[in-house]
Amino acid sequence: MHEEPLFDKLTLIGLGLIGSSIARAARTHCAVRKIAALDSSPRVLARVRELEIVDDASGDVEQALGDADLVILCAPVGACGAIARDIAPHLKHGAILSDVGSVKGSIVKAVAPHVPPGVRFVPAHPLAGTEYSGPDAGFATLFKNRWCLLTPIDQAAFERDHSNADNVAPSLSQRAPHAENDAVDALAEFWKRLGAKVEVTTPEHHDLALAITSHLPHLIAFNIVGTADHLEKVTESEVIKFSASGFRDFTRIAASDPTMWRDVFLNNKGAVLEMLSRFNADLAALQRMIEVDDGEGLFDLFTRTRAIRRGIVEQGQDTAAPDFGRPHEKA
Amino acid sequence: MHEEPLFDKLTLIGLGLIGSSIARAARTHCAVRKIAALDSSPRVLARVRELEIVDDASGDVEQALGDADLVILCAPVGACGAIARDIAPHLKHGAILSDVGSVKGSIVKAVAPHVPPGVRFVPAHPLAGTEYSGPDAGFATLFKNRWCLLTPIDQAAFERDHSNADNVAPSLSQRAPHAENDAVDALAEFWKRLGAKVEVTTPEHHDLALAITSHLPHLIAFNIVGTADHLEKVTESEVIKFSASGFRDFTRIAASDPTMWRDVFLNNKGAVLEMLSRFNADLAALQRMIEVDDGEGLFDLFTRTRAIRRGIVEQGQDTAAPDFGRPHEKA
Repeated sequence: MHEEPLFDKLTLIGLGLIGSSIARAARTHCAVRKIAALDSSPRVLARVRELEIVDDASGDVEQALGDADLVILCAPVGACGAIARDIAPHLKHGAILSDVGSVKGSIVKAVAPHVPPGVRFVPAHPLAGTEYSGPDAGFATLFKNRWCLLTPIDQAAFERDHSNADNVAPSLSQRAPHAENDAVDALAEFWKRLGAKVEVTTPEHHDLALAITSHLPHLIAFNIVGTADHLEKVTESEVIKFSASGFRDFTRIAASDPTMWRDVFLNNKGAVLEMLSRFNADLAALQRMIEVDDGEGLFDLFTRTRAIRRGIVEQGQDTAAPDFGRPHEKA
Repeated sequence: MHEEPLFDKLTLIGLGLIGSSIARAARTHCAVRKIAALDSSPRVLARVRELEIVDDASGDVEQALGDADLVILCAPVGACGAIARDIAPHLKHGAILSDVGSVKGSIVKAVAPHVPPGVRFVPAHPLAGTEYSGPDAGFATLFKNRWCLLTPIDQAAFERDHSNADNVAPSLSQRAPHAENDAVDALAEFWKRLGAKVEVTTPEHHDLALAITSHLPHLIAFNIVGTADHLEKVTESEVIKFSASGFRDFTRIAASDPTMWRDVFLNNKGAVLEMLSRFNADLAALQRMIEVDDGEGLFDLFTRTRAIRRGIVEQGQDTAAPDFGRPHEKA
C-alpha cells in the first residue's frame, strides 16, 4: 500500500518487545529496505535469527552500523549512554540516531555528548507496550493508533551549554539547524508509516506528562501488588483467587519489565516524586472523606473519574468493551 | 444440560449489572422455573420488560415475593437494610433471602434484624462485574469461573447478641441450625449452576480480603484518576492522549458505579483504612528507594510483583493475552 521505503537501512539495537515490534512493523509497512539487529545478548540475537524478523542478525557491529541511515536504540534507559558511546565511531555521516526510551531528559544528557558531527540525534518515545518482554513478545500492530512523541533538541545549544563537561565529544563544531529539522520530519514519517500518531514536544514536558500518565500509575501498581504480597491477615492464595474483584487490573502493569522500570524511576526521579506528592495529598483528602463519612464528596469524585474514562474511550485510546474486552465467553 | 431447576421461583430486587446478569444466567442454565423482578426505578423495570429477561417485571410486590423461594437483594450496600425491612412482611415461610453486596459485615448488621422467623438469610458476594451499570450491561456469562463467597451467620446467635437493639424483629424465637445449613448448600448449588466457584467464609474475613483485593485497588484508581484530573502542568487532553502508557488501566475500575462505591467505602471503613495505612507505609518505603537511588531494591520489588501476575493468570482469574486481550488489530 506504500510505494517507497523511507530509509534504505534501519539498524535496531536491542530486540526486546519494542525493538522486535519495530522490526515487524517496518517490514509489514515497507518502511525500510533492510533491517539489521544488534543485541548485547547472543541468545536474543539467535532467537531473532530463528524468528527471521530482520535481514542481518549476525551481530557484526561494523556491518550493522556502517551503512545504516536510521539507528534506533531500543535498550533500557540506563544502558543508552554507554551504547551511544560504543557505537558512535561506527555511525555513518548523515545517519539519524534515535531511541525509544520512556524518559527523555536523562537520555538526552546521556546520549547527546556522544553524538558525532554529521549524525542527527532525535529522541523519541512510542507510547506502546504490553506486560511481556523479549523478541517473541513483539508484534507488527503494537504502534497502531498509539502516540509517538519526538523530543528534538538543539544539539548546538546543548554542546554550548555542556562544553565544560569532560564527556562531551570534542570538535562538535557548527551544526545546521535545518538538517535537524529534516531529521525530525523523516523520523516522524517513519513512525506514521508504522501506524503511530506523532507529536513533537520538549524532553522536559515529555517527562512531566509521562510521570503522571505512565510512571506514577506503574509505581502505584507495583506498590499495591507489593502490599498484597506481604499481608498476614489475608493469604496470597486468597489475593490471587479473589483478584477479579479489582486487583487484577493492577497486576498487568506491575508485571512489566523490572529492568526497564527500575531505570525509569531512577532517571525521572524529579517528576515522579512531584507527581507522587500530589497523589499522596489527594489520597490523604480521600482518606479523610471516608473517615468523616463524606458520602457526597466520594460520590462527586467517583462521578468525575468516570468522565475521564469516557474521554479515553472516545479518543480511541482504549476499548469500550467491558473488562477491556477480556474473553468472558471462553473463561 | 441441567435437568431440574433448583428453585421454583427467584425474585431479584434491583436489576442493574449484577441483578440482570443473574436473571440471564439463571435462565441460560435453567436454575429456576420462574423469575420476578422488583426495582425502585420504574424506568429500569420498563427496560427489563423490554429486554424480556424475567417472567414478571410488573412491579407488584406481593405477587413478586409471596411465593418466591429465593430472594436476592441486588441493590447498593447502603440500601439493603431499608429494602429488607420493607419486604420482610411479604416473604414466604421457608424462603431463602440473600444479597450480592461487596461488603458483608454491615449488610449482616443492616439486614439480619429484619429477617422474619422461617426465612433463612445467607449473605453472598459474587466477585464479578464490569465498569458498566444498568440492566443493559448484564450478561449471562458474567459469573463463569468467578468466585462467589457465602458468609452465613448464626442467626440465633446474632439475635441473642442484638436482643437489646430496638430494631430487632420481635419473637424471632428458636431457629434450627440445620435449616440454615440446608439454605447455604442450596444457595451454593445455585451459584455453581450459574458458573461460579463457591467458597464459604465469615463476614469479617470477607471484608478484610476484599479490602485488599477490591476496595483498596478501587480507592487508589479513583484517587490517581482524580489527581490527573486537576494537574496544571499537564493538560487533561494530554492525560487522555497519552493514557495507553499505563494510566488507562486504572480508569476502567475508576469508571465503576459511584453509588455502589460510595457505599462500599462507608460500610467497610475499618478494613479499608487498615489496608490503606499498609499501602501508605509501603509507598513511603518505595519513595525512599527512588530518592536514594536504590536500584537493587526497586528491581527486587518489581520482580516479585511480576510473579503475582503469573499466579493470577495460571489460576484462570485473568487472561494471559497481552494488554488484557485488547483488540490490537482493530484499534
